[in-house]
Amino acid sequence: MTDSSESEGPRTDAPSDRVRVRRIPELAAYDRSVIDAILDAAIVGHLGVVGDDGQPFVLPVTVARVGGEVVVHGSVAGRLLRTGAGGAPVCLTVTLIDGVIVARSLFESSMRYRSVVVVGRAREIDDPDQKLAALIALSEHLIPGRPGEVRDTTEVELRQTKVFALSLDEASAKVNNGWSDDPAEDVASSTWAGVVPLAAVAGQPEPAPDLRPGIETPDSVRRLSGG
Amino acid sequence: MTDSSESEGPRTDAPSDRVRVRRIPELAAYDRSVIDAILDAAIVGHLGVVGDDGQPFVLPVTVARVGGEVVVHGSVAGRLLRTGAGGAPVCLTVTLIDGVIVARSLFESSMRYRSVVVVGRAREIDDPDQKLAALIALSEHLIPGRPGEVRDTTEVELRQTKVFALSLDEASAKVNNGWSDDPAEDVASSTWAGVVPLAAVAGQPEPAPDLRPGIETPDSVRRLSGG
Repeated sequence: MTDSSESEGPRTDAPSDRVRVRRIPELAAYDRSVIDAILDAAIVGHLGVVGDDGQPFVLPVTVARVGGEVVVHGSVAGRLLRTGAGGAPVCLTVTLIDGVIVARSLFESSMRYRSVVVVGRAREIDDPDQKLAALIALSEHLIPGRPGEVRDTTEVELRQTKVFALSLDEASAKVNNGWSDDPAEDVASSTWAGVVPLAAVAGQPEPAPDLRPGIETPDSVRRLSGG
Repeated sequence: MTDSSESEGPRTDAPSDRVRVRRIPELAAYDRSVIDAILDAAIVGHLGVVGDDGQPFVLPVTVARVGGEVVVHGSVAGRLLRTGAGGAPVCLTVTLIDGVIVARSLFESSMRYRSVVVVGRAREIDDPDQKLAALIALSEHLIPGRPGEVRDTTEVELRQTKVFALSLDEASAKVNNGWSDDPAEDVASSTWAGVVPLAAVAGQPEPAPDLRPGIETPDSVRRLSGG
């Protein structure tokens, strides 16, 4: 959190008004280090675009940060990316749920979370070399080490894939890592308050039904499964 | 899945063209039972609205299904709900990540997931009794049993809260519960394929720093933490 969060007036460190956190601004962070850390911990985001008739659509996409951009794998979201390819405005939101904040009232109960909102215009990555590099970055992010264990991506596969990049120039983060903010009379009561942590946990790898016998679980998959 | 998924032409069972699943339509489901089950397993969704200038915004919200509607707690997303209150078109998307599908190539690797997309116009719940019922439903969904353990919500709290409902009339689900669809030459290779399951897991409850001594962890919290 930056110093300005302790001042009274509106925060002036947001990169733009439209990504400035309005609700509970003291939870906002505009530092790239905070934004990057959240993006690097996420594998799925929600991409919003607007259809011709003004209807918004939100679809899940796999994401990976590459430097100052977020790379989004296109094939999962044809409609979104046809729209986005023309340079239409998009919003990519990544949310990590860290727990349930159990307050002494329903009103104060909430969630622990880390979220990032990025707005801008998506750039389609057309250049084959750049597209391949972005795809490898996405795969590396999803399953670290996996790109080195599989055959090369073919030219046909590469042509069938769409990859988009969205600059992090206009982004904000919001982090609630706290406890319930109950009024004094509730704190004095005999009602419990605390947090139930939530985390995404990887289980043991399950081999595919058509896996040929004698093929061992690769290192990347072992690591992803926590050993 | 319905019978029409086995026919050749386009599926005709989607409630509208704009929620019809275009990409890999064989993973689509339009049955309310499938949609309801996904919504009932989720506590957070991503709500998309469109700003005055055509810019989409996507923000995380807590959700609960109540009959044929999804209820969204408003206070977390002021900007979204000011827009939505006017009856503007919104899109609510809920995604549960179930695993990483590790294919024999980067191209075929993907995710196991269950997602629901709902489009429509959000209705603000104004009536105090209905609003209270919706808030209790949200709390019950987030922490089953908790509403019975805490004091009643006050009129002031209720006035400060905004709750919206979105009909499930226009909704679709997409479920990928499968394995990688590798071409025969990759299946014949010595490369591993399978799935690394992912699940959201609740940890042990952590009491708030200001919790008075001698207050036991309530039943609702114990159950949420898995014992």
